[in-house]
Amino acid sequence: MSSSQENAPLSGLYASSLSLVTDLYQLTMSYGYWKQGLQDREAVFHLYFRRPPFGGGYAVCAGLAYAADWLNNLRFAEADLTYLASLRGKNAPLFPPEFLAYLRDLRFTCDVDAMAEGTVVFANEPLLRIKGPLLQAQLLETALLTLLNFQTLIATKAARIREAAGDDQVFEFGLRRAQGFDGGLGASRAAYLGGADGTSNLLAGQHFGIPVRGTHAHSWVMSFEDEEAAFEAYADAFPDDAVFLVDTYDTLEGVRRAISVARRMRAKGHELGGIRLDSGDLAYLSREARALLNEAGFPHTRIVASNDLDENLITSLKQQGAQIDTWGIGTKLVTAYDQPALGGVYKLAALRRADDSGWEYTVKISEQLAKTSIPGILQVRRYETEKGQPRADMLYNSAEPLPENLTIVDPVDPTRRRPIRSTQYRELLEPVFRAGKLVAPLPTLQESRAKAQREIASLDLSIRRFLNPHVYPVGLEESLNTFRMNLILEKRPQRPA
Amino acid sequence: MSSSQENAPLSGLYASSLSLVTDLYQLTMSYGYWKQGLQDREAVFHLYFRRPPFGGGYAVCAGLAYAADWLNNLRFAEADLTYLASLRGKNAPLFPPEFLAYLRDLRFTCDVDAMAEGTVVFANEPLLRIKGPLLQAQLLETALLTLLNFQTLIATKAARIREAAGDDQVFEFGLRRAQGFDGGLGASRAAYLGGADGTSNLLAGQHFGIPVRGTHAHSWVMSFEDEEAAFEAYADAFPDDAVFLVDTYDTLEGVRRAISVARRMRAKGHELGGIRLDSGDLAYLSREARALLNEAGFPHTRIVASNDLDENLITSLKQQGAQIDTWGIGTKLVTAYDQPALGGVYKLAALRRADDSGWEYTVKISEQLAKTSIPGILQVRRYETEKGQPRADMLYNSAEPLPENLTIVDPVDPTRRRPIRSTQYRELLEPVFRAGKLVAPLPTLQESRAKAQREIASLDLSIRRFLNPHVYPVGLEESLNTFRMNLILEKRPQRPA
Repeated sequence: MSSSQENAPLSGLYASSLSLVTDLYQLTMSYGYWKQGLQDREAVFHLYFRRPPFGGGYAVCAGLAYAADWLNNLRFAEADLTYLASLRGKNAPLFPPEFLAYLRDLRFTCDVDAMAEGTVVFANEPLLRIKGPLLQAQLLETALLTLLNFQTLIATKAARIREAAGDDQVFEFGLRRAQGFDGGLGASRAAYLGGADGTSNLLAGQHFGIPVRGTHAHSWVMSFEDEEAAFEAYADAFPDDAVFLVDTYDTLEGVRRAISVARRMRAKGHELGGIRLDSGDLAYLSREARALLNEAGFPHTRIVASNDLDENLITSLKQQGAQIDTWGIGTKLVTAYDQPALGGVYKLAALRRADDSGWEYTVKISEQLAKTSIPGILQVRRYETEKGQPRADMLYNSAEPLPENLTIVDPVDPTRRRPIRSTQYRELLEPVFRAGKLVAPLPTLQESRAKAQREIASLDLSIRRFLNPHVYPVGLEESLNTFRMNLILEKRPQRPA
Repeated sequence: MSSSQENAPLSGLYASSLSLVTDLYQLTMSYGYWKQGLQDREAVFHLYFRRPPFGGGYAVCAGLAYAADWLNNLRFAEADLTYLASLRGKNAPLFPPEFLAYLRDLRFTCDVDAMAEGTVVFANEPLLRIKGPLLQAQLLETALLTLLNFQTLIATKAARIREAAGDDQVFEFGLRRAQGFDGGLGASRAAYLGGADGTSNLLAGQHFGIPVRGTHAHSWVMSFEDEEAAFEAYADAFPDDAVFLVDTYDTLEGVRRAISVARRMRAKGHELGGIRLDSGDLAYLSREARALLNEAGFPHTRIVASNDLDENLITSLKQQGAQIDTWGIGTKLVTAYDQPALGGVYKLAALRRADDSGWEYTVKISEQLAKTSIPGILQVRRYETEKGQPRADMLYNSAEPLPENLTIVDPVDPTRRRPIRSTQYRELLEPVFRAGKLVAPLPTLQESRAKAQREIASLDLSIRRFLNPHVYPVGLEESLNTFRMNLILEKRPQRPA
């Protein structure tokens, strides 16, 4: 694992050009813009979600390193152009050769501002803002959404599991149930970023430098004459790194056999690392196992538990006094089982006027105000206490001057307003690309993980709790809110009742 | 897209060796077997699931082409060995150089028997059986599960959506919400195999030859002065292939504007292909849109609908008389939203005796009989009516002679038995690899898709329905059942009450 791989998670993984990881309609629109001569009109898009996942109060930004890597390598390869040339509409090729020649020469020249990986983010806040030629900015939509939606989803799930596990070890073991190979690999990365201590996934260890863990399966035990022989053989191979899976036949019998073998190991100068429980009543079995181990003089032998665990089960097991030191989390983490997709969207928010006289702001109307987009060239300002605790976030149009007295307005309920008194703040969208070039190396995965830990720790517990979390205040700067309301009134047809 | 890519879905996609797409414990166990001299002991594993996904009555096998491609290219590359050599336990490297040298020379030599992609499969039936050296057969577990679990899951979801949509067109549009790039790519393939008519995903079109579809987004409309100008511009680019998204501002107003533009298109000899609804009450809006289009003389203009659809919403919309010709299905299909993982497992079922005197059958005990594994070298025999309708499936040990009079026994409720009278059957596990070599080219994706359609159509509607489907009879051949029961009694400790 080199640090360049860590920060460029796609590089070295895929052989083929990834310019076609997109929806056909991005190409049909691109052709349309090109045909209308609109390809270079400057546009601004925001990528954001409307609700934090899992009914929670926040999300943990992740995926920017993937997005940057993809953007850095964006080119239409000859094979891609050949494929596009092969597509036919009803009466003709879908794309004329002149447009494909244009794509051949296309180079990424946009500005990208984004929240760093590990940043805590709330509903409606752009994780990423693209500013650049309309055709390009449109073309990027699908891949950026795929990468940021999934990484942010899993990092957030991992943060919740970390919250439940407290200071216990948490390992991600989910590859076998992941959605494809890079579904698994990406999940391992995001889980680590969000707070897991490591993974079972060797490719993730190799590719990202994430610590790897693992012991043996039931089949190991079944391959020997009896359970004790299986444990002996495993200890022979890994005298100082053995964790025995004890539930192949009968869990507490398994614990007793593990203890027998651990005694013989100790006589040779080795200590059993742990036992693993993978079925049954983990609260009861872990307490019984802990008592057996303690009585036998193995108070430091760790108890590892796995079996369809998530943050809710961990919380429940802890409430029941489970004696578990290390949590192995699989399916529920790597697929974000209870909400396997983050509903991130990518919305046009501004277009340079045709006569170049400034910005035309745009809004997508919806029946619900909550789903109506926010116009402008947005920046997110996070006001904090002196100790760095977030107080409120303000979305504002960075292309317009800010009034002296600031007030934020709830985007869904305009009667909820807060004057801003705090003067300590951070601007969360930071320059990542300028004119298509990465402005600076991105943080390493380790740095992003540390940032996530810090940011989550700074959140009030009321926002971090799982059930009915407090809604953190995110508002539109008052003049932006007024502008948006007027724009919606103008665009929305007012049908007589 | 070449037909070799179609059948070798990983080839050409990934740059790196994929031998490390596995859990660390597969390598620690491999080292343990090698250290004990057990690496070449012949073993048999089965890959199966315990419950069909989504509360349904069946699943559609998929993923074998991925698995075969992965197995065909399985080698430990030098970079993989370097990584493994870097792993340390508490006091020493985890793996000694001699073992890594063994891995360097390791070549896949197993026999694989599997159900063809597109086969309808039920709970407890092996989708795949591996027979070969213990170390190798163990090592394959994680990747095989990842590939078959995900592909089978999504193919099954697509089959359900196809069931709900009837003869309507179904397109998969989910890439932006997929779990990573190959999460999206794999979902597009499996969705097509399971019954979708195409995808929006260009890489899936390029890589697998799947038909691609797509029109334009809201941002297209927002990029023009008004909606009608946007439709005009799109029709200018795609005069014979245009579908207008009509809900950017007000849906029925959008339909009226689409009609205005369609009239001008018709005057120039072109027909509007369709309109797309992406929000709001699709039942009401599609009926109103149909009426407007029909009145205006556009009865053949198709109505495309999207917006978080799945089989249940499609069913409900049809019951409400929705006038929808084409369904665009995204998130709910590509992530299998309501059950994002198939719980496939991979269990050791037989081991050649150390003295080579025959097979030792193995069983993994569980508190629940339903989770206890099935010993043997299993084959699945499907008995059918003369018309090819499945009647019952029998799992039997292919290494033992079959009795003359056959009876199947429910593996969970041994009092449920059925004598077999039918003489028409198929053996579902077919040879795929012998001694590590592919025995014959696999079917193309098109062929597998056609097979899935045939197999699903042959199932009774009671098995295909969504709510409380009839449980198709799958039983153990009586002597296998008796053998299994005795083996469980022998292995399970009988604790006094």
